[in-house]
Amino acid sequence: MAPERTPPNESARRFRARVEYDGTDFFGFQAQPGVRTVQGELEAALARLSNGERRAVDGAGRTDAGVHALGQVIGFTYTGRLSAEELGRALDALLPADVAIRDLRRAPTAFHPRFAARYREYRYTVWNGPRSPLRERTALGVRARLDTAAMERAGSVLEGRHDFSPFGAADQNPVRTVHSVRVRRAGSLVTIDVRADAFLRGMVRRIVAVLLEVGRGKMDETAVREALAARAPALGGASAPAKGLCLRRVVLGRRTGEAYGDD
Amino acid sequence: MAPERTPPNESARRFRARVEYDGTDFFGFQAQPGVRTVQGELEAALARLSNGERRAVDGAGRTDAGVHALGQVIGFTYTGRLSAEELGRALDALLPADVAIRDLRRAPTAFHPRFAARYREYRYTVWNGPRSPLRERTALGVRARLDTAAMERAGSVLEGRHDFSPFGAADQNPVRTVHSVRVRRAGSLVTIDVRADAFLRGMVRRIVAVLLEVGRGKMDETAVREALAARAPALGGASAPAKGLCLRRVVLGRRTGEAYGDD
Repeated sequence: MAPERTPPNESARRFRARVEYDGTDFFGFQAQPGVRTVQGELEAALARLSNGERRAVDGAGRTDAGVHALGQVIGFTYTGRLSAEELGRALDALLPADVAIRDLRRAPTAFHPRFAARYREYRYTVWNGPRSPLRERTALGVRARLDTAAMERAGSVLEGRHDFSPFGAADQNPVRTVHSVRVRRAGSLVTIDVRADAFLRGMVRRIVAVLLEVGRGKMDETAVREALAARAPALGGASAPAKGLCLRRVVLGRRTGEAYGDD
Repeated sequence: MAPERTPPNESARRFRARVEYDGTDFFGFQAQPGVRTVQGELEAALARLSNGERRAVDGAGRTDAGVHALGQVIGFTYTGRLSAEELGRALDALLPADVAIRDLRRAPTAFHPRFAARYREYRYTVWNGPRSPLRERTALGVRARLDTAAMERAGSVLEGRHDFSPFGAADQNPVRTVHSVRVRRAGSLVTIDVRADAFLRGMVRRIVAVLLEVGRGKMDETAVREALAARAPALGGASAPAKGLCLRRVVLGRRTGEAYGDD
């Protein structure tokens, strides 16, 4: 096979890639002046490979401060001469230890991960036992035994196309389709997997706050149904801590390609 | 039932407990002046509950800097008035986020975890795939595909009672009994579990360094057999990085009680 032809320097190529990060030491995905963000690190690394020219690196989900990702998807334009494989390796080599890039490949010129995403999967991890230092960064510790069967039943109330205003920010179109809410236990480890076409800001963590109340026996399925129908924030807007949340997978639309996510 | 009688202030009671820690930010278990150690944190917390009187907190294994533990066992003497349950809760509350204490209970006066331990189990974790920020603290990343079947065969060569000088420090009795070496793969995750009556200093990490060479196809079973028989350090004393290592479980002798370890 002939080697990939190096494009001339001025040609702009669009790429997409999967990004994993430990969100602990980031002020979230989205770049903001004066703080450390995942987007900021990605754009800085890309600029170093682009003669210092800074270009936007778009993400499929704007994860909050402290939220992790295994399968964030990014899209960006690159004007340099490296091949896709070289660019993937070079970017990964320039990134700090808490962000990694992989599966970099060409994308259509108009590719934007937010609009190309068909659905997203988040996992919330609870360590349902005594304080565990080795799970400190990636799980919420809850000592009292959670009733995961009740949580699973309450979660299924949220499935389907609903107005999720009680679980989200007020300035967005609040109608979303939640494909599934799964609550599983393996020993002391409890995982809550939520899949939806898209999420309102803070939505997963607000859903988890409600499901934890159910697990503690303080709310039931009916109360969750009422909370969903109410015009006020559920639990007064209570939100589960960021550290337990991870964007596991973003599945792109048929036109733009396959799933990106957890191995 | 009658409540536990509070012992008089001057009575010294012996306790044992299980300790979990994220070793990343510790200079190992053993207290040393001027650096942060697990033993130092435990002794400081105990002293705060003992009118400032400092007493030794002994561990079953002196894990190195960066090595983690799920099931370290400690023994110590306490002269205060708290019940066992109160003491366990109070100590845990005083410890930093990266150390936790649990399952605290009374022990015989002569109890010392190092001598009471019947065997220890260590796990070494390898992330056999692209760089993974979420596993950065607790697994060694190895990109090239490891031959785990070959590693398992080579590991079995080490099982039994041997002179482990090629895998340990020179100043200890080098004869140890390795009960088992198990190498398992689950997707990109490779775990190496080693169980022995006791370990020489640095022994697990030196064994892992050799097994990784086998996994990469650079050594075989026969070479491991020769390394074990040799009078020189295996691989010139090469050692796998600390961050992948975790003391999972310490099983105490029949007289002093049951296993302490991973849930």
